[in-house]
Amino acid sequence: MRALVYKDVGKLVLEQRPIPHITHSDDVIIKIHAVGICGSDVKILEGKHHVRPDTVLGHEFCGEVVEVGNEVHHVRIGDRVAVDNNIRCGFCDFCRMGLTSQCVDIKTSALGVMRDGGYAEYCIVPEKQCFVLPDEIDDILGTQVETLATVVNGMNTLLMLPYDYVMIIGFGPIGYLFAQFAKNIAAKVAVTEIDPFRISVAKQCGLTVWNPNEEDVVKNITDFTYGRKADIVIEATGNGLEQALKCVTPGGKVLPFGMDSSITATVVPNEITRWATKILGLYLGQNTMVPSIRIYQENRLNMAPFFTKVITLEEGLTAFEDLGLHLADLSHHPKSAMKIVMKL
Amino acid sequence: MRALVYKDVGKLVLEQRPIPHITHSDDVIIKIHAVGICGSDVKILEGKHHVRPDTVLGHEFCGEVVEVGNEVHHVRIGDRVAVDNNIRCGFCDFCRMGLTSQCVDIKTSALGVMRDGGYAEYCIVPEKQCFVLPDEIDDILGTQVETLATVVNGMNTLLMLPYDYVMIIGFGPIGYLFAQFAKNIAAKVAVTEIDPFRISVAKQCGLTVWNPNEEDVVKNITDFTYGRKADIVIEATGNGLEQALKCVTPGGKVLPFGMDSSITATVVPNEITRWATKILGLYLGQNTMVPSIRIYQENRLNMAPFFTKVITLEEGLTAFEDLGLHLADLSHHPKSAMKIVMKL
Amino acid sequence: MRALVYKDVGKLVLEQRPIPHITHSDDVIIKIHAVGICGSDVKILEGKHHVRPDTVLGHEFCGEVVEVGNEVHHVRIGDRVAVDNNIRCGFCDFCRMGLTSQCVDIKTSALGVMRDGGYAEYCIVPEKQCFVLPDEIDDILGTQVETLATVVNGMNTLLMLPYDYVMIIGFGPIGYLFAQFAKNIAAKVAVTEIDPFRISVAKQCGLTVWNPNEEDVVKNITDFTYGRKADIVIEATGNGLEQALKCVTPGGKVLPFGMDSSITATVVPNEITRWATKILGLYLGQNTMVPSIRIYQENRLNMAPFFTKVITLEEGLTAFEDLGLHLADLSHHPKSAMKIVMKL
Amino acid sequence: MRALVYKDVGKLVLEQRPIPHITHSDDVIIKIHAVGICGSDVKILEGKHHVRPDTVLGHEFCGEVVEVGNEVHHVRIGDRVAVDNNIRCGFCDFCRMGLTSQCVDIKTSALGVMRDGGYAEYCIVPEKQCFVLPDEIDDILGTQVETLATVVNGMNTLLMLPYDYVMIIGFGPIGYLFAQFAKNIAAKVAVTEIDPFRISVAKQCGLTVWNPNEEDVVKNITDFTYGRKADIVIEATGNGLEQALKCVTPGGKVLPFGMDSSITATVVPNEITRWATKILGLYLGQNTMVPSIRIYQENRLNMAPFFTKVITLEEGLTAFEDLGLHLADLSHHPKSAMKIVMKL
Repeated sequence: MRALVYKDVGKLVLEQRPIPHITHSDDVIIKIHAVGICGSDVKILEGKHHVRPDTVLGHEFCGEVVEVGNEVHHVRIGDRVAVDNNIRCGFCDFCRMGLTSQCVDIKTSALGVMRDGGYAEYCIVPEKQCFVLPDEIDDILGTQVETLATVVNGMNTLLMLPYDYVMIIGFGPIGYLFAQFAKNIAAKVAVTEIDPFRISVAKQCGLTVWNPNEEDVVKNITDFTYGRKADIVIEATGNGLEQALKCVTPGGKVLPFGMDSSITATVVPNEITRWATKILGLYLGQNTMVPSIRIYQENRLNMAPFFTKVITLEEGLTAFEDLGLHLADLSHHPKSAMKIVMKL
Repeated sequence: MRALVYKDVGKLVLEQRPIPHITHSDDVIIKIHAVGICGSDVKILEGKHHVRPDTVLGHEFCGEVVEVGNEVHHVRIGDRVAVDNNIRCGFCDFCRMGLTSQCVDIKTSALGVMRDGGYAEYCIVPEKQCFVLPDEIDDILGTQVETLATVVNGMNTLLMLPYDYVMIIGFGPIGYLFAQFAKNIAAKVAVTEIDPFRISVAKQCGLTVWNPNEEDVVKNITDFTYGRKADIVIEATGNGLEQALKCVTPGGKVLPFGMDSSITATVVPNEITRWATKILGLYLGQNTMVPSIRIYQENRLNMAPFFTKVITLEEGLTAFEDLGLHLADLSHHPKSAMKIVMKL
Repeated sequence: MRALVYKDVGKLVLEQRPIPHITHSDDVIIKIHAVGICGSDVKILEGKHHVRPDTVLGHEFCGEVVEVGNEVHHVRIGDRVAVDNNIRCGFCDFCRMGLTSQCVDIKTSALGVMRDGGYAEYCIVPEKQCFVLPDEIDDILGTQVETLATVVNGMNTLLMLPYDYVMIIGFGPIGYLFAQFAKNIAAKVAVTEIDPFRISVAKQCGLTVWNPNEEDVVKNITDFTYGRKADIVIEATGNGLEQALKCVTPGGKVLPFGMDSSITATVVPNEITRWATKILGLYLGQNTMVPSIRIYQENRLNMAPFFTKVITLEEGLTAFEDLGLHLADLSHHPKSAMKIVMKL
Repeated sequence: MRALVYKDVGKLVLEQRPIPHITHSDDVIIKIHAVGICGSDVKILEGKHHVRPDTVLGHEFCGEVVEVGNEVHHVRIGDRVAVDNNIRCGFCDFCRMGLTSQCVDIKTSALGVMRDGGYAEYCIVPEKQCFVLPDEIDDILGTQVETLATVVNGMNTLLMLPYDYVMIIGFGPIGYLFAQFAKNIAAKVAVTEIDPFRISVAKQCGLTVWNPNEEDVVKNITDFTYGRKADIVIEATGNGLEQALKCVTPGGKVLPFGMDSSITATVVPNEITRWATKILGLYLGQNTMVPSIRIYQENRLNMAPFFTKVITLEEGLTAFEDLGLHLADLSHHPKSAMKIVMKL
């Protein structure tokens, strides 16, 4: 089968690989229908994210079950399923206390990072990672169930209320999904973004959007909220915690969601105390695959502007250009895409 | 009447002042029975806390109502009352949304800081700040209702569970009160402290205590919790946030309670996200005076080691020495007290 | 001034009354702009709700401040304000612990029930009950701030999530407001109603609506939710708790919001336990006037179908017919209105 | 091996059974050290609880792992383990949304009820049901991990605070465990019980205890709480919901924990609303085995009076007499035990 394989920093190659077969009694083989390109895939190719060499990348995928192990009882051949790429052991204290996102094995086993993923025609997946898709969710949207699941975990943590003023720092795919929720739920929402293409998508979604390189965001959020500042600030870039703390109202919540391990932030603990700020760290999804399917099934989010283009597996080799990364020399340029999906 | 009045940094003087009388229809006059010396009083005299010059200090006090305004309907002459020194306007959006600790006027009107307080024989107090004390709470303990109220607000925020491992950074009066709660509720609790006198009080309370200047606290808490680290870290010094983040378990809670506006902390937002840490800022008490009275009334906390000594108002001038501050030159030395109360 | 005064069961009369003047230093006089007719007003006239005879009814009103007492500092002459009709003492343990809806005096002092309210040209109101309205909220909508405030208290209790399936029993004004929130927030929402006019309003709002007299609601909600049943059931009639318990999914929440003191329900405690049902009682608004103003200000709810008609004060005498009550003999007939507002 | 097998209502027999062996690759064989007799076992023998005939009863047990299947990776031969007898499928929507106590298969697979349990020398158990015991927990206490796990789930739901007044209806093993927690955490706690033996155990624990057949419990709890009533009422008999609603304070929480499917209760929904009562249904444990082990490991509960006697497996046949049930004719008499454990 054809597969896009990570070889080294900046190096993704199209290879012929054997079609995988069941190795454990609880495995299933999925014929992949579609797979999204995630921001972490970009980071992997930049050398900024851990990865096992010689791995088929791709962790945002859905497809059809074509073979099942003999202890598979819930998923059936022919089922169309979305996949949770993060495998949790179920036995560590974190798993057993319900905090599966902190499973001690979670980084050693992720599909498309540490074992073969979905940039290929077939993939082998443990049954428990599979979630049957209803007809209302097509293959393109089906690639984004796990993406939404991480955001829904954020929503479970934030408990956004109808009178909240919400600000979202960064309008990539994660900021996009949070913004759709906030648009439905909150009193007001504004987003910040520096990339011109993504600013245009925010406008297309009818969102208030500010470019922090051009505008005084603290002043803007203060005016936008009649002097109150934001009840909730969602940081979806990895480098905006200091900014978030300046934009949140006393007693408000900051969700540091974006991840960039190269960033440090200088904070004044006295101010966190004085202003009763809640900083709510939160990692991956957790019990949120089924909820995400529910939300997509009812068409509750405006997802049309989310998908910039649908391409072939072969075109995936050049798609990183659209996401702002020049693989040849790892240089960056403005993005021309929100989400790109490869359809097989 | 006799009163201890703040004149300037390092300068507290005993003055004769006229006994105050009702100025607003909702005022009451309290004949003060006892008043505690708070850590903020020390900071005021060091010049590290805002204060209005020529103010009678003292915000931890209780006494007897001896005169009431003509719109006072709930408190009666003869009532023995504890006082909430923080006056909330009741009209700003924070007050009206239930977040009274963030009242926009809270810093402009605090008793014993911005208007005359309890280091005196009498004090004028708005009726709504008064809370009737039951007989089970004596005058000494009655001075500490508001202190406990801030800690109970912390407990309301933490929602400590019986299986939590708890660590408390700093064993001053606030750390002491949190430790008593944790001792009752949590699976295990350890405290850190550098002051020898306060270390000895912790030991007297039967607590596990570590001196961070002498021991590796991160190693200790890891061993103490069988490798897990603390589910809850309460920071009660103002300068331990970085330490707290190293000691908290994935998914755990950090309560930055201590306040020191001179401190900054360097944090890695990526780690807050990756380890799903919750940093829960929290200021003053809020709806917690009545709960604090309930707790003292049932004698639920071991308070004997809390009160180091009871002195006269005149002796208050030299009590700051016991709390580690040499007023003459603002130099510091080891403390020889936890809490000192002046009895009138 | 003209006023509609409750005299006896079934008896509401138009009287000339003197314009009220300040009696307490914290009072304000409001020139009323508009006042809504509430379902409780209907119950008062039916003799099913406590009331003080000879009282000007009307508790859903807004207007302009025309006179202020000498201790009024936050509201100014000329301000256009909405009113919270429920006066809380601020001194009982419930008030002081933040549960002001349970204030021990709340039933003895309600505006338009136990003291003169808003079915008149002027009303005397304590300053703290007044909330300034922004220009975006007109006088008609301004009458419904407190109504929404009770519903927002329900939303604060429910913590509705984007993947919830929601069912609302009863589509009167309260059911209407909850339905608008659920339409914004939840995955799916259905309402039940028996009154033909109100069923037509639900359809006008684009809602799924079932008539329990004609359809099997338990079957419907089961099918509607793909077999799951509702995560949240809001009971807004007062007599549907048993129905609600049949329609809620294991682990789900029931909000018994409607009030009818003549109703008892037979429940099986074993099933509440077995199915982990949460029944969340909740009374009035609490800290929710400001949030309600925020929501209206941003035009977040579709309120056009809510207001059936705007009438004069004099026409108020006959408006109860539209709300299904024949005052002459207290007989009932189908309603022809959702909300009726008198404009002065 | 020897085993006590359920044959029919009232009929428990000692049989010789073959020692079980691994049938699934994730099974382990446990050599049982001790097994407790649960109230549900009594109900099974009375014919009031579902059960599969010819089943080895006993679901409160611990023991040593003596054989493991070839896909067992976390538990090792020689490990001493406690068992969670409720097997959750992991695939239904409830499991996948984190509400595993509502697993659709939970009643079809319970150890000691629907498949062979722990009243025997050996038992076959899926690996994921096993939790390694630390040395601090002996075999007798090790039988009660799952029992405590259900109570800890209750504690997670209640979020008991240090100023709560708590009342517990029924002082069987469940009431006992809740009372120990409340004694540690709450401001005050009282229990009710009608059985003289269990009343004596409550007194031995230093608890305030009332016999509802002899005393006016509503009056007692009102006086005990200075007129406030209980913030939390835990109903641990199955037939006290109406009583609980009379004893809870406005805004308070009722936990209907006891289960008796023959009971109905008449409630007034209007009062649940008016008094803002929260009724919090809750079933089994969930993520609470590890927390329970933590609590026992630190010896946080006074468990000495809990264990009335330790007997042999053979003596188990007559132990039901001590628990108030005469097997020969299913008649009831006063109990002479709290918890009885069989040691093998």
